[in-house]
Amino acid sequence: MVSTELYRLSACEIRDLLRSNTITVEEYAKSLLSRVSARDNTVKAWVYLSPEYVLEQARALDKTLKDNRGPLFGIAIGIKDIMNTKDMPTEYGSPIYKGNNPTFDSAAVGILRAAGALIFGKTTTTEFAAVQKGTKTANPHNPAHTPGGSSSGSAAAVADFQVTLSVGTQTAGSIVRPASFNGIYGMKPTWNSISPEGEKTFSIHNDTFGFFARTVKDLELFADIFSLQDDEMPRSVDLKESVFAVLNPTDILGEGSKAALGSAAQLLRDSGARVEMIDLPDIFAKIIDMHTEILAHDGRIAFYKEYRLAPEKLNSQLIEYVTNKHQLSRKNYVMYLEESSSLRPQMDRLLSGYTALIAPSTLDAAPQGLEYTGNPVCNSLWTALHVPVINIPGFQSSDMPVGVSLIAPRYHDRQLLKVCEKVGEVFTRNGGWTSKV
Amino acid sequence: MVSTELYRLSACEIRDLLRSNTITVEEYAKSLLSRVSARDNTVKAWVYLSPEYVLEQARALDKTLKDNRGPLFGIAIGIKDIMNTKDMPTEYGSPIYKGNNPTFDSAAVGILRAAGALIFGKTTTTEFAAVQKGTKTANPHNPAHTPGGSSSGSAAAVADFQVTLSVGTQTAGSIVRPASFNGIYGMKPTWNSISPEGEKTFSIHNDTFGFFARTVKDLELFADIFSLQDDEMPRSVDLKESVFAVLNPTDILGEGSKAALGSAAQLLRDSGARVEMIDLPDIFAKIIDMHTEILAHDGRIAFYKEYRLAPEKLNSQLIEYVTNKHQLSRKNYVMYLEESSSLRPQMDRLLSGYTALIAPSTLDAAPQGLEYTGNPVCNSLWTALHVPVINIPGFQSSDMPVGVSLIAPRYHDRQLLKVCEKVGEVFTRNGGWTSKV
Repeated sequence: MVSTELYRLSACEIRDLLRSNTITVEEYAKSLLSRVSARDNTVKAWVYLSPEYVLEQARALDKTLKDNRGPLFGIAIGIKDIMNTKDMPTEYGSPIYKGNNPTFDSAAVGILRAAGALIFGKTTTTEFAAVQKGTKTANPHNPAHTPGGSSSGSAAAVADFQVTLSVGTQTAGSIVRPASFNGIYGMKPTWNSISPEGEKTFSIHNDTFGFFARTVKDLELFADIFSLQDDEMPRSVDLKESVFAVLNPTDILGEGSKAALGSAAQLLRDSGARVEMIDLPDIFAKIIDMHTEILAHDGRIAFYKEYRLAPEKLNSQLIEYVTNKHQLSRKNYVMYLEESSSLRPQMDRLLSGYTALIAPSTLDAAPQGLEYTGNPVCNSLWTALHVPVINIPGFQSSDMPVGVSLIAPRYHDRQLLKVCEKVGEVFTRNGGWTSKV
Repeated sequence: MVSTELYRLSACEIRDLLRSNTITVEEYAKSLLSRVSARDNTVKAWVYLSPEYVLEQARALDKTLKDNRGPLFGIAIGIKDIMNTKDMPTEYGSPIYKGNNPTFDSAAVGILRAAGALIFGKTTTTEFAAVQKGTKTANPHNPAHTPGGSSSGSAAAVADFQVTLSVGTQTAGSIVRPASFNGIYGMKPTWNSISPEGEKTFSIHNDTFGFFARTVKDLELFADIFSLQDDEMPRSVDLKESVFAVLNPTDILGEGSKAALGSAAQLLRDSGARVEMIDLPDIFAKIIDMHTEILAHDGRIAFYKEYRLAPEKLNSQLIEYVTNKHQLSRKNYVMYLEESSSLRPQMDRLLSGYTALIAPSTLDAAPQGLEYTGNPVCNSLWTALHVPVINIPGFQSSDMPVGVSLIAPRYHDRQLLKVCEKVGEVFTRNGGWTSKV
């Protein structure tokens, strides 16, 4: 039964094989490491990965008594290097933190480890997950293209089957964008439903912890581990009784994303769902600009320490935040905070009229070049509104993947996952994208 | 010139003596350590303090070249043990973190260290700065009384002259309350004007970093180091041209706080200021209850990791948060978030009509016993509204200190300090409290 391609399986599949003692954690880890070894020269998703330490952890896990095995027992997880890990360096994509060893876990990493996960390695991130200058990581589907960012390595490693699951953060579009570019699922839960403690802060109002997987069942595994809970038990979803809102494509979208939205709407109709093509009310248009300015204010606070310690090693954009180069006023900042806050319940109300809303995840498929991780403009709105978003893969443009975003009101994360089970199945089966890696 | 009582001087005084080479950091540190040695059995403000390491740091600082000496060169600072320090244990007042050694500094500690501060030791905190169960620390003015909390040790150590400055955090009333109980200045700046990164999180919406000192000039030193900046340059303050709002005492206040408010109003009038006794509009009344429920929701997220790791070592109140014992709904939570947000600009507007507002800092002087750190009800409103607050000492009740709160609109921290210079001088000179420690 032991396959040389264990690395291709989902977390739920691996979990079942481990539970039934069909495989050991060590065998599974070796399979992943063989994949890394074959592909790392091309994808370069890791900023820290010690095969010896992975195997050491795997063997230690194999020795765990049956009763002490957590719900994520043995499942390998890539950790965005913006999160503190007690046993691996944490460098936040910044030369200031070269060789930094926090010796204790971020809240989320601690929760994963307590659940029995195999903390596999640290994945690349743009500098402090705050800039759009790319990392060394390439898109596994075509290494001439960016994997997106800032959660570059986490998305690429999962897409490339080098690790089964990974975690990341989104402050503008840093989970949904790389998920779309890499053709995998990426979930940004409701803001502040998982503690960001022990992660580098950029915008306290927007930083959101989230995760990547290749199946919806695996996203649900994450949701269990992190205790995501809606007010009400999620209901099962029948597409025939569902009503979706799909955003009308706008001029800023490229052909790939326009086509993906169109296909998404058509596939849902074909599945018996009702689909309303809608435009967002104008009141939501300005939140993207407000979000940009809020980030600048929050960055002024967040990077002040680094500015004091080593300004010469800090990205110029972050220095501009700290020194308030553009003379932004606190008066506007507090006004924007209040306005963003007042728009959130309005978006919740709009979304609650639908089974879910479908929006573009990115302007188009991943652009060429590794210098620029791509525009987060399709994501900032949802980040600022704190609503849960899942990128559903399944579409394509010029041989590269394109996803669409599935969106629900705040704290309807579990219900959104239920919807995603059904919708994801339709899109990934019929959308036209097949991973060749 | 070297006095055996260097420990009694303010940070600005010590700074001048250090700059003029009148004293060395080592001499100053030895003076503080002698005070600690004489008083620690009574006050018990420290959870970690190594005299050897203090002297080692002091000697290293003394060797720093003149040009490399930062603006806080050699000034000793006590660090609330909720903040990570790279060279000292950080236990967050929790048995779960016994012996925890983060090996890197919180943002604020890093900024202080980069400014040349002498990181003196770690001060006691209630469990995760989240509960009102007291620590071992006693009130220096009468050890049968609580020093307040959660920043218990930071406030007591500064009041007792064991350290010159200290830092703390406030989520409900954890800076202003202990400052009032200990008869010192305590400042809670505008929320998110100083990064809380590397501090244990309780409520992401409310946790506020702040500081303690015995003079307003020393508070201003902190404001400089942390780069607090208003939109406009602060204006000089003339009490004769000032208009203060003073809250009418309510039935919940004890005699000490009632008298302090009354004296405060009278002293300001005597100084030529106009004083309006006001009641807060009813719209602000409900924010205290909303704040309590927001804390419960935020605590559900913040302590989930500790609940997974070691529930048996977690305070029962925090377990109730995590398990949502009171079945609080996310629906109410997001409603309260929006309502709190909409009340903030309304309070800013109200406050901007006055030179400053004066409110009670505590229900009364510090209650007897070390079990309970006292009620934060006088502070939650201001914390939730994110406005800057300074406790001004100077009043007394039954031989114990009582302070009052000075409050301004958000991001008017520097202006508030200007006001505090004048008002503090009047209150501390004529209010009737003199420290006997």
